[in-house]
Amino acid sequence: MSSMIRSEDTICAPATAIGGAIAVIRISGPHSLGICEKIFHPSDKNIKLIDLKGFTIVLGEILDGEEVVDEVLLSVFREPHSYTGENSFEISCHASPYIIRKILELLIKNGAVSAKPGEFTQRAFFNRKMDLSQAEAVADIIASKTSAAHKIALNQMRGGFSREISKLRHELLNFASLIELELDFGEEDVEFADRKELKTIIFRVKDLADRLANSFKLGNALKNGIPVAIVGKPNSGKSTLLNALLMEERAIVSDIPGTTRDSIEDTIVIDGIEYRFIDTAGLRETSDIIEVMGIKKTHEKITQASVILLIDEISDSAVSINKRIRSMRELIMDSEKRLIILINKIDTVSDNRQAELKSGIRLDDNDRLLFISAKEKSGLDDLRLELRELVMKDKLSSDDVIITNIRHYEALNHVSESLGRVIAGLEDHIPEDLIAIDIRQAIYYLGEITGEITSDEILGNIFRYFCIGK
Amino acid sequence: MSSMIRSEDTICAPATAIGGAIAVIRISGPHSLGICEKIFHPSDKNIKLIDLKGFTIVLGEILDGEEVVDEVLLSVFREPHSYTGENSFEISCHASPYIIRKILELLIKNGAVSAKPGEFTQRAFFNRKMDLSQAEAVADIIASKTSAAHKIALNQMRGGFSREISKLRHELLNFASLIELELDFGEEDVEFADRKELKTIIFRVKDLADRLANSFKLGNALKNGIPVAIVGKPNSGKSTLLNALLMEERAIVSDIPGTTRDSIEDTIVIDGIEYRFIDTAGLRETSDIIEVMGIKKTHEKITQASVILLIDEISDSAVSINKRIRSMRELIMDSEKRLIILINKIDTVSDNRQAELKSGIRLDDNDRLLFISAKEKSGLDDLRLELRELVMKDKLSSDDVIITNIRHYEALNHVSESLGRVIAGLEDHIPEDLIAIDIRQAIYYLGEITGEITSDEILGNIFRYFCIGK
Repeated sequence: MSSMIRSEDTICAPATAIGGAIAVIRISGPHSLGICEKIFHPSDKNIKLIDLKGFTIVLGEILDGEEVVDEVLLSVFREPHSYTGENSFEISCHASPYIIRKILELLIKNGAVSAKPGEFTQRAFFNRKMDLSQAEAVADIIASKTSAAHKIALNQMRGGFSREISKLRHELLNFASLIELELDFGEEDVEFADRKELKTIIFRVKDLADRLANSFKLGNALKNGIPVAIVGKPNSGKSTLLNALLMEERAIVSDIPGTTRDSIEDTIVIDGIEYRFIDTAGLRETSDIIEVMGIKKTHEKITQASVILLIDEISDSAVSINKRIRSMRELIMDSEKRLIILINKIDTVSDNRQAELKSGIRLDDNDRLLFISAKEKSGLDDLRLELRELVMKDKLSSDDVIITNIRHYEALNHVSESLGRVIAGLEDHIPEDLIAIDIRQAIYYLGEITGEITSDEILGNIFRYFCIGK
Repeated sequence: MSSMIRSEDTICAPATAIGGAIAVIRISGPHSLGICEKIFHPSDKNIKLIDLKGFTIVLGEILDGEEVVDEVLLSVFREPHSYTGENSFEISCHASPYIIRKILELLIKNGAVSAKPGEFTQRAFFNRKMDLSQAEAVADIIASKTSAAHKIALNQMRGGFSREISKLRHELLNFASLIELELDFGEEDVEFADRKELKTIIFRVKDLADRLANSFKLGNALKNGIPVAIVGKPNSGKSTLLNALLMEERAIVSDIPGTTRDSIEDTIVIDGIEYRFIDTAGLRETSDIIEVMGIKKTHEKITQASVILLIDEISDSAVSINKRIRSMRELIMDSEKRLIILINKIDTVSDNRQAELKSGIRLDDNDRLLFISAKEKSGLDDLRLELRELVMKDKLSSDDVIITNIRHYEALNHVSESLGRVIAGLEDHIPEDLIAIDIRQAIYYLGEITGEITSDEILGNIFRYFCIGK
């Protein structure tokens, strides 16, 4: 299948991050048993590694000659019942940098090689423990920070859409073979492939490919977070709003030890979906220094954002607010970007001012208008609800088939194009050999998704983004 | 034994660091089986957790209601054959921050509590899986960065000196009881405790306590690294020397993925021992800007250092070099600090200049003189050899009993003092009741080391420096 297979090698790598109380080192491959026998010595001298069944754990010592490196637990997995499908072992040792390095050195000295990023998963793929889209989802699962991203990745790892794609691909393959058989009979007017059935299956595949391709935009947003820009004139309360949203978020995040959230980026999570505030470095300071940088900076932020929060003040006139909305809409251009107009500082005026202003403001169908007080934290729940609904009208169900991977997106677009040509060709009674070419092309791209068609280049691109030890 | 026992609780914590491919979550305590049964569902529906023997692994899913959180491996340990001595489980999941948090939340929702730092090891201590000095060594093992630090910690974890201390303590206890029995007989002139035997055992214990206490200085150096100061006049080549040493060190460090060395501190490791260069921030720049800060800064560095590298140039006169050595010795004062005089830039002159200069330089017995060229990297091997030998004349053998813990050091000093008084008392025929008090005191302090005597305060101090999950 590929020259990247080097299953004659036994690979090893740390599977856990540096730090913590324990570390896990993985070994997999044909010589893993022999290598472990050389360096691992069970505390119970009657135990022989070779006699052990898979899914068992042994207590013992890692020895370098006479010297004890560590007391460890060794988990035993026997082929094919392991992650990789090969004989595999996991050494659970004390998480000292010295011990980890020493054990890896011993493994390598005794014949193992350092695993490349994702090489364990790549072997799982080669040994048909999972298809390619499932393998790709493993990296996504590890990277997932929110429940939405996690759900999509887990769905995909558990087979998700790839099982259906694989099934449809094999049906298409049958038809392609039948059509090619017709071609072999040359001038004879035979029709092995039922044209009506063929059309049905082509439509089904194209429909699936289109649906999946269309889910990419949402999938990508759910996986990578939704970029939000906060814009407005100086002192309209942008930094107060951002801080209020982030403060409440931080209070929500549970303080389970060891799981503190990464606070480098300004993000909030609503209903499992991450919203990333763009370029808020300046906003976090109390003075809105970002305004100094002017319209160009604002323009850049809007270009990157999917949602724009435009802040005005309750004391502004409807005329000036409408003017700002208009110029914002001109800046936005892209109809897919969503605009939420926030009228801030409602705590400073009486309630009937809101109704008065509301009647004067001109909104487009897709725009939303909310009255808030960032200072008093009122209206923020409504804002969160709007953010949630702008992105996704309905609750994300765990059965939803959503793709998040640009490689899949591109392959699905190719599938759809090829099948579009097949459909047009069938209508126009184009010669079978041309139709067969387009079907073959669709089959090819479907196979790229599941990994039934691969190249070293594709595999290299996929697995180099994995972490070591997976 | 202590109010800190809360073994009615079932504790949970991540045992691995954030990041990596997989994460391990530990659960231990009386309800761990029931809690795991609620959230873990074996892939093989015929498997019941309660039927499983210890040291086995099960594949399955963590479910939150209907929702799959992750596919995991569950390692099963049954009391008393576990690290803590309790029923314990380890969940090996994908290392996504979302999944880790979610699993911990589920465990806590179902009755577990977050483990405090070191609480798993503390339970191992309470359940007599290890004594206190062994428990303390667990944290040292995890923190060990060099082979010397690792060897000492591992020795200690495997029983090391504490078994002998515990044995001697029990012999002393016997004698104390016998002497106290004599006291009960009041004026009658009985002698249950053989005075000669008593003296022998007292000398043996005192000798061990003194030997261990004396090893502390070395042990501490091996555990925490040996502080080295580089001093010398501007442009004598301090930064060139430091860079040369560090560059060669970096080239030696193997580049096994995931084990890159921490480069925050300027350290080199020679023969498993770490040497830390003090305050070299300024030195790393090509200009010796540190010199601007003058004599006060140099003085501070010397105060912190165990070894001082004094750099002079081969073009300097013996008179001026001797003058600098003299003023350096005045600065040092502490006779335990070692001085290595490095005559740099030997590449710029002919070889006979070295002999000429050598005969003119006045050294103390403990001083070392080396001719080097930092630029050409010559003489650096000799320097490394000297650094190694200044600290330890002999090779560290794995049987050497070395203590690294200031708590043990202080307790051993108390033991030695008490027993010194016992010996003097026996010579001077001091009344038995006074001798018995001193023996009791020695017994008390010996018990503090092994944990046979503990207090909440001692335990709190020890375990709060552990990491979570150990």
